[in-house]
Amino acid sequence: MTTSFQFTVTGTDSSGTRARTGKVETAHGSFETPVFMPVGTRAVVKTMSPRDLKDTGTKILLGNTYHLAVRPGEKHIEKFGKLHKFMAWDGPILTDSGGFQVFSLADLRKLNDDGVTFRSHVNGDIYTFTPERVLEIQQSLGSDIMMPLDQCLGWPCTYEDAQAAAVRSLAWLKRSVQVPLPPDQALFGIVQGSVYPDLRKMYAEEMLPLNLAGHSIGGLAVGEPKEAMFEMISLVNEILPWHKPRYLMGVGSPQDIVMAVSRGVDMFDCVMPTRNARSGGVFTWDGKMQIRNSRHSESLEPLDQRCSCYCCRTFTRGYLHHLFSKKVEEILGLTLLTLHNITFYHSLTKTIRETIQNGQFTEFSRDFLERYRKASETEEE
Amino acid sequence: MTTSFQFTVTGTDSSGTRARTGKVETAHGSFETPVFMPVGTRAVVKTMSPRDLKDTGTKILLGNTYHLAVRPGEKHIEKFGKLHKFMAWDGPILTDSGGFQVFSLADLRKLNDDGVTFRSHVNGDIYTFTPERVLEIQQSLGSDIMMPLDQCLGWPCTYEDAQAAAVRSLAWLKRSVQVPLPPDQALFGIVQGSVYPDLRKMYAEEMLPLNLAGHSIGGLAVGEPKEAMFEMISLVNEILPWHKPRYLMGVGSPQDIVMAVSRGVDMFDCVMPTRNARSGGVFTWDGKMQIRNSRHSESLEPLDQRCSCYCCRTFTRGYLHHLFSKKVEEILGLTLLTLHNITFYHSLTKTIRETIQNGQFTEFSRDFLERYRKASETEEE
Repeated sequence: MTTSFQFTVTGTDSSGTRARTGKVETAHGSFETPVFMPVGTRAVVKTMSPRDLKDTGTKILLGNTYHLAVRPGEKHIEKFGKLHKFMAWDGPILTDSGGFQVFSLADLRKLNDDGVTFRSHVNGDIYTFTPERVLEIQQSLGSDIMMPLDQCLGWPCTYEDAQAAAVRSLAWLKRSVQVPLPPDQALFGIVQGSVYPDLRKMYAEEMLPLNLAGHSIGGLAVGEPKEAMFEMISLVNEILPWHKPRYLMGVGSPQDIVMAVSRGVDMFDCVMPTRNARSGGVFTWDGKMQIRNSRHSESLEPLDQRCSCYCCRTFTRGYLHHLFSKKVEEILGLTLLTLHNITFYHSLTKTIRETIQNGQFTEFSRDFLERYRKASETEEE
Repeated sequence: MTTSFQFTVTGTDSSGTRARTGKVETAHGSFETPVFMPVGTRAVVKTMSPRDLKDTGTKILLGNTYHLAVRPGEKHIEKFGKLHKFMAWDGPILTDSGGFQVFSLADLRKLNDDGVTFRSHVNGDIYTFTPERVLEIQQSLGSDIMMPLDQCLGWPCTYEDAQAAAVRSLAWLKRSVQVPLPPDQALFGIVQGSVYPDLRKMYAEEMLPLNLAGHSIGGLAVGEPKEAMFEMISLVNEILPWHKPRYLMGVGSPQDIVMAVSRGVDMFDCVMPTRNARSGGVFTWDGKMQIRNSRHSESLEPLDQRCSCYCCRTFTRGYLHHLFSKKVEEILGLTLLTLHNITFYHSLTKTIRETIQNGQFTEFSRDFLERYRKASETEEE
């Protein structure tokens, strides 16, 4: 049986990092990596229509299995012709396993080697997620890339807890790969192991023979020091095969993305651009800013002179400041800043791809991180 | 001095009503009448970007002088190149005088023959609106069509109160026409007089020699019986000159618009399509519906089979129901229903124009009102 999913490394960084460019093909089209995936929690990227998303340059979305299974339910979505048709998004979709939300949002009822039973934070109903069950849900959703159930820990956690969770998650992963999957849905594995190098190493090595379509790095960006996060990424990517895509889950800031790319990561998702937008936070090539700040009140400038999104082509900072001001608080402001921030993230990954291919990634990376570091020093938020 | 504003009657209803079609030209482009003007209270039609508005078929917007003068202030907006540039809307804009909001929203401080002093409901500041001042504000805003200050009453009101307000408002109107105006900004008059035929008649007749660019009918749709409203419209339109546009302020439902057109009205504004959208109310050719109603949960239909808006071309009622469901409540739902409702209002006025021109307005009007009456009987909201 041939599968729709293909990954090809299309370029490597001649300037000395482990960064690479690639192309992923799925049953719903292809995209280039490094790629950023906006988060469409409840079958919608907050405030964005599919045509808005196309306008930002979005190629692939993330959907949250936990949220969709709880409301409106995967069987409900299946009746509409699965998730793509339900939300009218015809490009690739990646779904997580729901594990992260079960362990962070839900009222946990029972965890054992079979799976996890929990009470939904939304409606109080009881659900059981097993490795097999979350793949069944994701098949009803019809995502192009699926994630296996794993046990997610916060930070800090003891070595013993991290080890037990890693052993359990690996056992779940081995059950997951036994589930017969349709050829148009690819399964990734997720490396866990918290900040413990030997657990990460053991996990990555045990995963290799499973011949997964791609590999995710999970359990990071949960509060641990940045150094620990990047150490784990470097270590894991030394082991994970070069010819499969690597997805760093839930990361992150523009700086984190640049630094993870230089360590060989290809795929990213994060609520940062969308969530920040809704509270007035703007990402630009000159750092972050807060549109509510009174210094923008009379500004005739766009959010970012270098950005070509509809918001930057059309509106001044002063107008956007007005939309976000107290007792005005217009919804359009949330939509426009979201449109801009997602466009910025895609412009960033596009620039990353271009500089990898023309041998200037190290130079770009150094300049970009320096500019963001300086901007953070003066940030007024 | 030649003015930018022109109105031409382009067609009359051969099927027996006083309905007519027309064309209005302004410094920011032209539009056909009967026309519906979405309300852009705070320099934004709630949830809509200018490109969304173009997509709905919007030709002219209404801006609220009171809201804009209070926040962000007309002098602030002027610095951005006036209201068109501030909100990035390059089509015609009509601004009201602010009078209606002063008398309905603000904490009224002092009313005399000179004007009205009030405390803003937003920031507590004290403002004085005189006939001259509201035109000065509207000149700073740079709207294409301006309204004069008048004293607005609710309903019921006594004959004596209505008479006193009418006399005062007429005196204010006579001061308004003395203000030198730029050639690209036209001034309408507003007929007041509550539900009292002789006051309405007196007012309309006194207005005629003032040679205003157009005539508004104010002080209706404030709670009076529909019969009284339509009686006043018919009576006033018997007096107002045929060759000037007539604007019925703050009206209304699709049925009200059809019935007012048949009595010779050309222009309408109302928050109904936008406000209803944000609470799940949908206008269709088969009546109103509430998308939150559980009967839409599994519907694969668009909101309206006959509508060609982006929302109807793209999404099912089931998906929109999901966006509006409890604990989901996605902002995109508000945007999409607003897009649809405004499109519906413009489709309605387009059909009205077409049926006036092909002699089928009476037939259309009868069928439409009958369909809406039946729909109201079965309405489940």
